[in-house]
Amino acid sequence: MTSERAAFTELLAQRWRAANSLLCVGLDPDPDRFAPGLRGREGAIHEFCCAIVDATAPYACAFKPQIAYFASQRAEDQLEAVLCHIRREHPTVPIILDAKRGDIGSTAEHYAREAFERYRADAVTLSPFMGQDTIEPFLQYAGRGAFLLCRTSNPGGDDLQMLDVGGERLFERIARLAATRWNRNGQLGLVVGATYPQELAQVRALAPELPLLVPGIGAQGGDIGATLRAGTTPAGLGLVINSSRAILYAGAGDDYAAAAARVARTTRDEINRHRPAA
Amino acid sequence: MTSERAAFTELLAQRWRAANSLLCVGLDPDPDRFAPGLRGREGAIHEFCCAIVDATAPYACAFKPQIAYFASQRAEDQLEAVLCHIRREHPTVPIILDAKRGDIGSTAEHYAREAFERYRADAVTLSPFMGQDTIEPFLQYAGRGAFLLCRTSNPGGDDLQMLDVGGERLFERIARLAATRWNRNGQLGLVVGATYPQELAQVRALAPELPLLVPGIGAQGGDIGATLRAGTTPAGLGLVINSSRAILYAGAGDDYAAAAARVARTTRDEINRHRPAA
Repeated sequence: MTSERAAFTELLAQRWRAANSLLCVGLDPDPDRFAPGLRGREGAIHEFCCAIVDATAPYACAFKPQIAYFASQRAEDQLEAVLCHIRREHPTVPIILDAKRGDIGSTAEHYAREAFERYRADAVTLSPFMGQDTIEPFLQYAGRGAFLLCRTSNPGGDDLQMLDVGGERLFERIARLAATRWNRNGQLGLVVGATYPQELAQVRALAPELPLLVPGIGAQGGDIGATLRAGTTPAGLGLVINSSRAILYAGAGDDYAAAAARVARTTRDEINRHRPAA
Repeated sequence: MTSERAAFTELLAQRWRAANSLLCVGLDPDPDRFAPGLRGREGAIHEFCCAIVDATAPYACAFKPQIAYFASQRAEDQLEAVLCHIRREHPTVPIILDAKRGDIGSTAEHYAREAFERYRADAVTLSPFMGQDTIEPFLQYAGRGAFLLCRTSNPGGDDLQMLDVGGERLFERIARLAATRWNRNGQLGLVVGATYPQELAQVRALAPELPLLVPGIGAQGGDIGATLRAGTTPAGLGLVINSSRAILYAGAGDDYAAAAARVARTTRDEINRHRPAA
């Protein structure tokens, strides 16, 4: 089955156009925020995620499950089942496993197996802190993608990412490496927060072709218009704009999936209103 | 039970002295390298790790399970069982969960729950790339420890960690932050590879009191004498020197646990021969 699946960049490029969407729906299932009808039920995480996926798929260019939410709840099996569901029911929507793994050697190989063999994700997020060795085992999986943390949307992101490393900032160095030396087979993308549109523009200038995964709109308050102006490619594409909580918890009642669909559609449309070439 | 357990730094300080050991035994279970009698058996990972733990505990100041090896093999339940076994049978040996997590906000909270509630580790390894926000949710667990990646033992570690960030290198900045502003309650340590003793000495100078987790001896070829001279505190302590594969796979046959014990004892003794104040 996996061998028949297209490469991540191809899946994403097709999906951007087919769904006319740059919106990525993040799957961060928090049982404390589940609707009353789901609470305390066996398999509630799986049920919640599948309902969200089915309701929001028409508006999504990708799904991004956040593995921490599953790991804290002993729900790796439910994550596997959710991803099976996405591949079966929505085979044209790529899956980005948000794991931010970062290790080397045989340990990194095991993380790559986790992401690409166990969960069969199309792409993964990685931390570049340990350098190219971190990335290499993931690139061995032909066609799979890897988004490297570059400029993150949190206040503490400044602590290291904004340091001047000889005429450029650390995040710019990472963008440059990801666009050139590290990107041997065109499998890389970057994670750049929406809360800093100016820096998003700098990343786009350094990496004109790379897909950029952009958290920070919705609950985190990033400006959609500024994000689009800063980050799209000349074709009006190139961005994977993530929203998680604003969609997942749009409704507190048992109609949560319908509420999520409404917010996903509205967000997709608002993004499109700002797309230069939409 | 967890509430009765001492703080990580206390456990470690007591164990260094009680076992007269700075050796940390890394648990990286690779079924391809298991003895014939274990191969293909249900629960083989658990059985292997428990046998290694029981055989090497007398020589160990800590155990360090590497979560990637369990995750790639759908063996989180076996990891939980191994950690239960260590706490029950070897309650004075602290457990460092090697996970190198690095995220922020509610995601980081879920990773902290994974490490400290699900697995009930005494300490965890973290990536500092996203800054202080990454660390904060882990520090909320009073008494638990967090080792931040600082100077790693792989060639690609140079890519970012050696960059000059205004009069010092990035790894030195991290050491300084971990020793001061970030370390509000004395819960932090640093990960510094044994392959660069000179940089280990620089880290020790910047962080005189912090426990340093040191991978890179054994299979990776770091020099034990140079490591000890560079990294111990005036009391001849302060280091958690990890060896994984050289111990785990010391014997290829069904006497693997006895072989592991021999190598662990030899390594512990070799470390002690070089300890300034042993």
